[in-house]
Amino acid sequence: MDSMTLIAMVSIVTAGLCMAVGSIGPALGEGNAVKQALTAIAQQPDERNSITRTLFVGLAMIESIAIYCFVISMILIFANPFWSHAIARAGG
Amino acid sequence: MDSMTLIAMVSIVTAGLCMAVGSIGPALGEGNAVKQALTAIAQQPDERNSITRTLFVGLAMIESIAIYCFVISMILIFANPFWSHAIARAGG
Amino acid sequence: MDSMTLIAMVSIVTAGLCMAVGSIGPALGEGNAVKQALTAIAQQPDERNSITRTLFVGLAMIESIAIYCFVISMILIFANPFWSHAIARAGG
Amino acid sequence: MDSMTLIAMVSIVTAGLCMAVGSIGPALGEGNAVKQALTAIAQQPDERNSITRTLFVGLAMIESIAIYCFVISMILIFANPFWSHAIARAGG
Amino acid sequence: MDSMTLIAMVSIVTAGLCMAVGSIGPALGEGNAVKQALTAIAQQPDERNSITRTLFVGLAMIESIAIYCFVISMILIFANPFWSHAIARAGG
Amino acid sequence: MDSMTLIAMVSIVTAGLCMAVGSIGPALGEGNAVKQALTAIAQQPDERNSITRTLFVGLAMIESIAIYCFVISMILIFANPFWSHAIARAGG
Amino acid sequence: MDSMTLIAMVSIVTAGLCMAVGSIGPALGEGNAVKQALTAIAQQPDERNSITRTLFVGLAMIESIAIYCFVISMILIFANPFWSHAIARAGG
Amino acid sequence: MDSMTLIAMVSIVTAGLCMAVGSIGPALGEGNAVKQALTAIAQQPDERNSITRTLFVGLAMIESIAIYCFVISMILIFANPFWSHAIARAGG
Amino acid sequence: MDSMTLIAMVSIVTAGLCMAVGSIGPALGEGNAVKQALTAIAQQPDERNSITRTLFVGLAMIESIAIYCFVISMILIFANPFWSHAIARAGG
Amino acid sequence: MDSMTLIAMVSIVTAGLCMAVGSIGPALGEGNAVKQALTAIAQQPDERNSITRTLFVGLAMIESIAIYCFVISMILIFANPFWSHAIARAGG
Amino acid sequence: MDSMTLIAMVSIVTAGLCMAVGSIGPALGEGNAVKQALTAIAQQPDERNSITRTLFVGLAMIESIAIYCFVISMILIFANPFWSHAIARAGG
Amino acid sequence: MDSMTLIAMVSIVTAGLCMAVGSIGPALGEGNAVKQALTAIAQQPDERNSITRTLFVGLAMIESIAIYCFVISMILIFANPFWSHAIARAGG
Amino acid sequence: MDSMTLIAMVSIVTAGLCMAVGSIGPALGEGNAVKQALTAIAQQPDERNSITRTLFVGLAMIESIAIYCFVISMILIFANPFWSHAIARAGG
Amino acid sequence: MDSMTLIAMVSIVTAGLCMAVGSIGPALGEGNAVKQALTAIAQQPDERNSITRTLFVGLAMIESIAIYCFVISMILIFANPFWSHAIARAGG
Repeated sequence: MDSMTLIAMVSIVTAGLCMAVGSIGPALGEGNAVKQALTAIAQQPDERNSITRTLFVGLAMIESIAIYCFVISMILIFANPFWSHAIARAGG
Repeated sequence: MDSMTLIAMVSIVTAGLCMAVGSIGPALGEGNAVKQALTAIAQQPDERNSITRTLFVGLAMIESIAIYCFVISMILIFANPFWSHAIARAGG
Repeated sequence: MDSMTLIAMVSIVTAGLCMAVGSIGPALGEGNAVKQALTAIAQQPDERNSITRTLFVGLAMIESIAIYCFVISMILIFANPFWSHAIARAGG
Repeated sequence: MDSMTLIAMVSIVTAGLCMAVGSIGPALGEGNAVKQALTAIAQQPDERNSITRTLFVGLAMIESIAIYCFVISMILIFANPFWSHAIARAGG
Repeated sequence: MDSMTLIAMVSIVTAGLCMAVGSIGPALGEGNAVKQALTAIAQQPDERNSITRTLFVGLAMIESIAIYCFVISMILIFANPFWSHAIARAGG
Repeated sequence: MDSMTLIAMVSIVTAGLCMAVGSIGPALGEGNAVKQALTAIAQQPDERNSITRTLFVGLAMIESIAIYCFVISMILIFANPFWSHAIARAGG
Repeated sequence: MDSMTLIAMVSIVTAGLCMAVGSIGPALGEGNAVKQALTAIAQQPDERNSITRTLFVGLAMIESIAIYCFVISMILIFANPFWSHAIARAGG
Repeated sequence: MDSMTLIAMVSIVTAGLCMAVGSIGPALGEGNAVKQALTAIAQQPDERNSITRTLFVGLAMIESIAIYCFVISMILIFANPFWSHAIARAGG
Repeated sequence: MDSMTLIAMVSIVTAGLCMAVGSIGPALGEGNAVKQALTAIAQQPDERNSITRTLFVGLAMIESIAIYCFVISMILIFANPFWSHAIARAGG
Repeated sequence: MDSMTLIAMVSIVTAGLCMAVGSIGPALGEGNAVKQALTAIAQQPDERNSITRTLFVGLAMIESIAIYCFVISMILIFANPFWSHAIARAGG
Repeated sequence: MDSMTLIAMVSIVTAGLCMAVGSIGPALGEGNAVKQALTAIAQQPDERNSITRTLFVGLAMIESIAIYCFVISMILIFANPFWSHAIARAGG
Repeated sequence: MDSMTLIAMVSIVTAGLCMAVGSIGPALGEGNAVKQALTAIAQQPDERNSITRTLFVGLAMIESIAIYCFVISMILIFANPFWSHAIARAGG
Repeated sequence: MDSMTLIAMVSIVTAGLCMAVGSIGPALGEGNAVKQALTAIAQQPDERNSITRTLFVGLAMIESIAIYCFVISMILIFANPFWSHAIARAGG
Repeated sequence: MDSMTLIAMVSIVTAGLCMAVGSIGPALGEGNAVKQALTAIAQQPDERNSITRTLFVGLAMIESIAIYCFVISMILIFANPFWSHAIARAGG
C-alpha cells in the first residue's frame, strides 16, 4: 500500500460518500418546497406567478447546496491537489 | 493485495453505496411532490395544467440530484481516473 | 486471498447492498404516491383520468431511481469491468 | 479460508441481507397503499372499481421492487457467476 | 475453522437474521392495513364485502414479502447449494 | 474453538436474536390492529361481529410472521442440520 | 477459553438480550391497546363488555409474543441442548 | 482470564443490560396507558370504576413483561446454573 | 488484568449503564402521565381526587421499573456475589 | 495498565456517561410536564393551585430518577468500593 | 502510556462528552417549556404572573439537571480524586 | 506516541465534539422558543412586551447550556490542567 | 504511510464529510422556510413583498451556515496549513 | 507517525466534524424560526415590524451557536495551541 494508492482509495470513497450523503438533505428539502408550491397554487390560482417565482428562487438556493457537494466530489476525482502532488513526487 | 486490486475494490463499493444511499432522498422527495400534486389536482381541477407544469419542473430538479449520484457511480466504474492511472503504471 | 477472490467478494456484497438499500426510498415514495392517488380519486372521481395520468408519470420517475440501483447491481454481477480485467490478467 | 469458501460465505450473507433489508420498504409502502385504498372505498363506494384498479397497478409497481431484491438473492444463491468461475477454476 | 464450519456458521446467522429483519416491515404493514380495514368497516358497514376482499388481496401481497424471507431462510438451512458442494467436496 | 463449539455458539446467538428482533414488528402491528378494533367497536357497536372477525383474520396473519421467527429459532436449537452433521462427523 | 465456557457465556448473553429486546415490542403494543380500550369505554360505556373481551383476546395474542421470547430465554438457561451435549462430552 | 471470571463478567453485564433495555418498553407503555386513563376519567367520570379496573388489568400485563426481565436478571446474578457448574467444577 | 480487576471494572460499567439507560423509559413515561393528569384536572376539576389517585398509582408502577434498575445497580456495586466470591477466593 | 489505573479509568467514564445519558429522559419528561401545566393554567386559572401541586409532585418523582443517576455517579467518583479495595490491596 | 496519561485522557474525554450529551435533554426540555409559556400568555394574558412563576420553577428544575452534568464535568477536570491519587503516587 | 501528544490529541477531539454535539439541543430548543414567540405575538399583539420579556429570559437560560459547552471546550484548549501538568513534568 | 500521505488522506476525508454532513441541516431548513413562504403568499397575497423580503433574509442566514462548511472544506483542500507545513518540512 | 503528524491529523478531522455536526442544529432551528415568522406575518400583517425584530434577535442567538462551532474550527486550524507547542518543541 504505497502512498499513491492510499490517496486514490480515499479520494474515491470520499467523492462517493460526499455526493451520496449530500443528496439526502437537498432532495428532501426540494420535495417539501415543491409539495407546498402545488398546495399554494391550488389554494390561490391567481398568485400562480409569484408563487412559482418564489419557488424557483428557493429551489435554486437548495440546489446550490447539492451542487457544493457535487463540486467537491468532482474536485476530489478530477482536480485533487493531493493526488497531483503525489504524482509529481512519484515522477520527480 | 496489490495496488490495483485495492483501487478496484474501493471503486466497486463506493459506486454501489453512492447510488444506494443517494436514492433515498430523491425517491422520498419525489414521492412527496407527486403525492401533493394529486391532492392539488383533486382540489382545483381547473389548475391542472399549471400544477402539472410546476410538478414536472420540481421533479426534474429532484431527479437531477439522483442523477448526480448515478453519474458519479458510472464515472467510478467506467471512467475512473485513478484506475486508468494504475493500469497505465502497471503496463508502463 | 488472491486478487480475484477479493474483487468477487466485494462485487457480491455491493450488488446485494446496493439493491437492498436502494429499495427503501423508492418503495416508500411510491407507496405515498399511490396512497394519495386513491384519496384524490375518492375526492374527485371526475378527475380520475388526469389523476391516474399524473400518478403514472410520477411512479415512472420514482421507479427509475430503483432501476438505477438495479442496473448498477446487474453491472457489478454480470458486466464488471474490474472483474473482466482481473480475469484477463489472470489468463494473460 | 480458501477462495471458494470465502465466495460462498459472502454470497450467503449477501443473499440473506439483501432480501431482509429489501423487504422493509416495499412492505411498508404496500401497507400504506392498501390502507388508503380501504379508506377511499369507504368514502366513495361508487368508485370501487377505479380505486381497486389503481391500487393493483400501484401494488404491482411496489412489489416489483421487492422482486428485484428477491431476484438478486436467487442469482447470488443459484446462478452466481463468481461462484461458477471459482468452481471452474478449482476443477480446471 | 475449516471451510465447512464457516459455511455452516454463516448460513445459520444469515437464516436467522433474514427472517428476523424481514419480519419487521410486513408485520407493521399488515398491522396498518388491518387497522384501516376496521375503521372502514365502522364507517361503511354496507361496503363490508368489498373492503374485506380488498384487504385480503393486500394482505396476501404483503405476506408474500414475508414469505420470500422465510423461503430464503429455509433454503439456507435445508437446501443450501454451497453447503451441498462443501459436503460433496469433503466426501469426494 | 473447535468446529462444534462454534456452531453451537452461533446457533444459540442466532436463535435468541431471531426471536427477539422478530418480536418487535408483530407486537407493534398487533397492537395497532387491536387498538383500532376497539375504536371501531365503540363507533359502530352493531358491526361488532364483522369487526371482530376481520380482526381475528388479521391477527392470525400477523401472528404467523412471529411464528415463522419462532419456528426458525426452534429449528436452530432443536433440529439444526448443521449441528447434526457436526455430531455425526465427530462421532464417525 | 474452553468450549464449555464459551457456550455458557454465549447462552447467558443471548438469554438476557432476547428477553430485553423482546420486551420492547409487546410492551409498547399492549400499551397502545390498553390506551385505546380506555378511550373506547369512555366513548361507549354500554359496549364495555365486548370492548373488554376484545381487549383481552388482543392482549393475550401480544403477550404470547413476549412469552415466546421468555421461553427461549428459559430454554437457553435451563434446558440448553448444546450445553447438555458439552457436559456429556466433558464427562464422557 | 480463567473460565469463572469470564462467566462472572458476562453474567454481570447481561443482568444489567437486560433490566436496562427491558425497562424502556414497559415504562413507555404504562405511561401511555395511565395517560389515557386520566383522559378517559375526565371525559366519563361515571365510568370511573370500569376504567380503573381495565387500567389495572392492563398495567399488570405490561408490568409482567418488565418482571420477566427482572426475573432473568435475578436468575443471572443469584441462581446462575452456568456459574454453579463452574464453581462445582473448580471445587471438584 | 487479574480476575478481580476485571470483575470490578465490569460491575462499575454495568451499574452505571443500567441506571442511565433505565432512566430514559420511566422518566418519559412519567412525564407523559403527569402531563395528561394536568390536562384532565383542567378539563374536569370536579374529578380532581380520582384523577390524582389514579395518577399516583400509575406513577408508582412506572417508578417501580426505575427502582428495579436502581436495585440492580446497587446490588452490582455493594452486594455483588461474583465480587464476594472473587475476594473469598483471593483471600483463601 | 495496572489494576488501579483501569478501575480509575472505568469509574471516570461510567460516572460521566451515567449522568449524561441519565439526563436525557428526565429533562424531556419534566419539559413535557411543565409545558402542559402552563397550558392547564391558561385553560383553568381557577384550578391554579391543584395544578401546581400535582405538577410539583410529578416533577419531584421525575427529578428523583435524575437524582438516582447523580447518586450513582457520585458513588462511583467519591465512594467507590472497588477503588477502596484496590487502594487497600495496593497499600497492604 | 503510563498510568497518569491514561487517567488524564479519560477524564478529558468524559468531561467533554458528559456536558455535550447532557445538554441535549435540558435544552430541548426548556425549549418546550418556554414555547408553551408563550402560548399560554397569549391565551390568558391575565394569568401572566402565575404562568411566569410556574415557568421559572420548571426551568429551574430542568436547568438543575444540566448543572448536574456541568458539575460532574468540572469535578472531572479540576477535582478529580483519581487524578489526585495518581499525582500523589507519582510524587511519593 | 508520547504522553503529551496523546493528551493534546484527546483535548482537541473532545473540545470539538463537545461544542458540536452541544450545539444541537440548544439550537433546536431556541428555534422552538422563537417560533412560538412569533405565533404568540401574531395572536396577541397587545402582549408583545411580556411575550418578548419571557422569550428573552428563556433564551438566556437555553443559551447558558450552549455556553457551558463552549466554556468546557475553551478550558480544554486554553486552560487544560492535564496539559499544564504534562508540560510541567516534561520541563521539570 | 509517511506523514504527508496521512495528512493528505485525512484532509480529503474530512473535506468530503464536512460538506456532506453539513448539507443536511441547511437544506432541510431552507426547504421548510421556502415551504412556509409559499403558504404565506397563498394566504396573504397582499403581503407578498414583506414575506419575500423576510424569506430572503432568513435564507441568507441559513445558507451562511452551509457556506461555513463549504469554506472549511475548501480551506482543507486548497489552503491547509498543516499540509503546507508538511511540504515545507519535506522540502527543507 | 510522529507527534506532529498526529496532532495535525486530529486537528483536521475535528475541525471538519465540529463544523459539520454543529451546522445541523442551528440550520434546523433557524428554518423553524423563519418558517413561523412568515406565518405570523401572513396572519398579522400589522405586526410586521415587531415580528421581524423578534425574529432577528432570535436568529442572532441561534446563529451565535453556529458561530461558536465555526470559531472552534478556525482555532483548531489556524491558532491551535497544541500545534504551536509541537512546532516549538520540534524547532527547539
